[in-house]
Amino acid sequence: LPPTRELAARLSVSRTTVIAAYDRLIGEGFATARLGSGTYVENLAPARVDADGRRTSLRPRRIWRAVPPLPASLWSPAEFDFRPGVPDAQLFPYAAWRRLLGREFRPQSAGGGYGHPAGHPGLRDAIARHIGAARGARAAAEDVIVTNGTQQAVDLIARVLLAAGDRVAVEDPGYAPPRRLLASLGLRIAPIPVDGEGMLVDVIPAGTRLVYVSPSHHFPLGPSMSLQRRIALVGWANRNGAAIIEDDYDSEFRYSGRPIEPLQTLDTHGRVIYVGSFSKTMLPSLRLGFLVAPRSLRVALEAAKYVTDWHTPLQTQAAMARFIVDGLFARHIRRMRSVYRQRHQLVLEHLERSFGDVLDVIPSSVGLHLAAVARRATADQVRSIVVRALAAGVACQPLSMYAAGGAPLAGIVIGYGAIEAERIGEGLTRLRDCFEP
Amino acid sequence: LPPTRELAARLSVSRTTVIAAYDRLIGEGFATARLGSGTYVENLAPARVDADGRRTSLRPRRIWRAVPPLPASLWSPAEFDFRPGVPDAQLFPYAAWRRLLGREFRPQSAGGGYGHPAGHPGLRDAIARHIGAARGARAAAEDVIVTNGTQQAVDLIARVLLAAGDRVAVEDPGYAPPRRLLASLGLRIAPIPVDGEGMLVDVIPAGTRLVYVSPSHHFPLGPSMSLQRRIALVGWANRNGAAIIEDDYDSEFRYSGRPIEPLQTLDTHGRVIYVGSFSKTMLPSLRLGFLVAPRSLRVALEAAKYVTDWHTPLQTQAAMARFIVDGLFARHIRRMRSVYRQRHQLVLEHLERSFGDVLDVIPSSVGLHLAAVARRATADQVRSIVVRALAAGVACQPLSMYAAGGAPLAGIVIGYGAIEAERIGEGLTRLRDCFEP
Repeated sequence: LPPTRELAARLSVSRTTVIAAYDRLIGEGFATARLGSGTYVENLAPARVDADGRRTSLRPRRIWRAVPPLPASLWSPAEFDFRPGVPDAQLFPYAAWRRLLGREFRPQSAGGGYGHPAGHPGLRDAIARHIGAARGARAAAEDVIVTNGTQQAVDLIARVLLAAGDRVAVEDPGYAPPRRLLASLGLRIAPIPVDGEGMLVDVIPAGTRLVYVSPSHHFPLGPSMSLQRRIALVGWANRNGAAIIEDDYDSEFRYSGRPIEPLQTLDTHGRVIYVGSFSKTMLPSLRLGFLVAPRSLRVALEAAKYVTDWHTPLQTQAAMARFIVDGLFARHIRRMRSVYRQRHQLVLEHLERSFGDVLDVIPSSVGLHLAAVARRATADQVRSIVVRALAAGVACQPLSMYAAGGAPLAGIVIGYGAIEAERIGEGLTRLRDCFEP
Repeated sequence: LPPTRELAARLSVSRTTVIAAYDRLIGEGFATARLGSGTYVENLAPARVDADGRRTSLRPRRIWRAVPPLPASLWSPAEFDFRPGVPDAQLFPYAAWRRLLGREFRPQSAGGGYGHPAGHPGLRDAIARHIGAARGARAAAEDVIVTNGTQQAVDLIARVLLAAGDRVAVEDPGYAPPRRLLASLGLRIAPIPVDGEGMLVDVIPAGTRLVYVSPSHHFPLGPSMSLQRRIALVGWANRNGAAIIEDDYDSEFRYSGRPIEPLQTLDTHGRVIYVGSFSKTMLPSLRLGFLVAPRSLRVALEAAKYVTDWHTPLQTQAAMARFIVDGLFARHIRRMRSVYRQRHQLVLEHLERSFGDVLDVIPSSVGLHLAAVARRATADQVRSIVVRALAAGVACQPLSMYAAGGAPLAGIVIGYGAIEAERIGEGLTRLRDCFEP
């Protein structure tokens, strides 16, 4: 460092100021004074930090290697978007939502501080009423915990109930993100085959502590679980002291037939945790979902939500509560059900008309996608077809990507949440072309 | 069920319709036909569900007993609110925020589908620039992962690095929620005493894998960690192959003295994960924070965020990005710094003037609270004083509630984030009255 007198002159400040500054730097260890020689900047790094430091850097636990890197295709736009599991964001009632959300960002709104981990009281009540009316699920406001979507609901439940090494059963094929989550928690995953009636309850291994299942609308295949199978599953959980996560992710959109009862209504022993999502009925980017838990888990689930991230953003919760209470949610669902019904019908007709020689459609009348099994192509061949389709501007998914341990199915998943009715024909025609050699 | 002919007449529908309905009920197991006798509703529950079911209900893991129930006082309003850790929600720039957030809820905005787990690219970049300029932290956009506040950042880091049974060191006294989170993950908590220079690095037990620390502004006591101690901590982590979580939760609000360097800038071996929050600079109810991780952890942390809850709400992230880029964030911080500086000064003067016989204030010039140690009262006596104060409309916290294992300190924490300057005098006068026997 320059001599104090020189620096004082250069900066036009008093020498006392410079001396005070040097003293402070010395006091804090940034500089040292060498008698008769001057003030020197300390060489802090790496000499002092790294005296006998190891050069190895931090490593994630090995368990994270089992969580595959995210496919970039999840976020890349596509000309014809048939990816399943996303609603039509163009038809979201933005104006109403802006108005309701804006009301919560005012000085007189209550959302200034931290909120209750279990959620906004008005939203918990509105959810309980909604699923009671729409799904016949039994819930009071205090049974509901608001989460950041289904994924966090599964996380909280698994953390509250299970320890590393415990066994969890999932559907095979089945929805991948919860399976990856459960694996990352060190749980042992038992993939259970499904048939046309749902998960094969008889082959769930003894000692399984938790079953994750989507009875209202199997993902990705589409069928609903038969009543017999649902009764068998709840009975199995009772006999085995196990828990069931019922993921009811999109059954608001049913186009024919009678809605099936949630497992939760068959559960007389508090074994079923019902999980719902606003990702399909509203927008996934809101990250809003909920769980309905048996009373015995309520305190622990609240604690789990609290330690995980305190609570879900308050203003979003408050706006969603008003959206439901004011009837806008029911209206939006009605409107979207008719939009998706038309698309469902168009996709189904097109598949039956033009894909009859290559695909067998699996019957389903719920939700935002259809699955179809390849008549001759292998799973690998379907994967190649999907890659070719993407190059041709058409995004869809191979059934094989949902294999949970068993042999990958050769087939395809066609979502119609995000594609306009007028574009379905051209998109599927392009997809059909990719099947030709 | 009534005979089909009778029901058909009662409902004025054709008998064929009723027969079809009965057949369906029978097919789905809700009813049975007994030959020559009629159709009967099945007794589904509990008889079939509960054939040999156990009556025990689901139980949380024992580990959750260690997470204490949340004190209702966290959410109850108080006439004079001196609780630490909350900003002034009345002074939040609501109009600007409504405008920016409203822009994201439009059909042409990009936030319709799922977002990237690591966060909105614009926000990651804005955060990297902000902490570089404001805190001297070294980060590129790709080092930043957006989280639902500090609490989730700690959760992700712990899940990526540690398994149940691993040892974690925390400050004693120290901020409770991360400690509870770490305990809920089955980690062994080593409480490390702090002195005026911060955590006593020398007593961190061998084998500790992670240290959670708030070097810029100790919570709740207030001092910053000395440079010597910071260098010692980073050196210790290097020698022991351990990780450090640096929680830099409110150092934007510094009223005098020079800002201390983050530990992250002393770290030459990728041992420090820097964690920041918008809960104090913006609103806690937004649930917005971030972490800056060494490169070796990036993929696993993204995967952890993905399996935990996919991503933080997109529109909030996009609005926050614009809020920073447009300079509104820096302006809001400047404004609030001057507001809080005045309150800090008022509280300090009042404590020194009227509490000199009962409290010794711990010097601190950062953040939204001050701590003071009782001169004579015991920790139990201070707890009683705090209870009396609450009855008199004054909410503050006893230091003892932050004990992490060692003897609880007798003292008090006075926050001034949520109380207007004009009300500080009366509130503290009332609090002073509660000290008199």
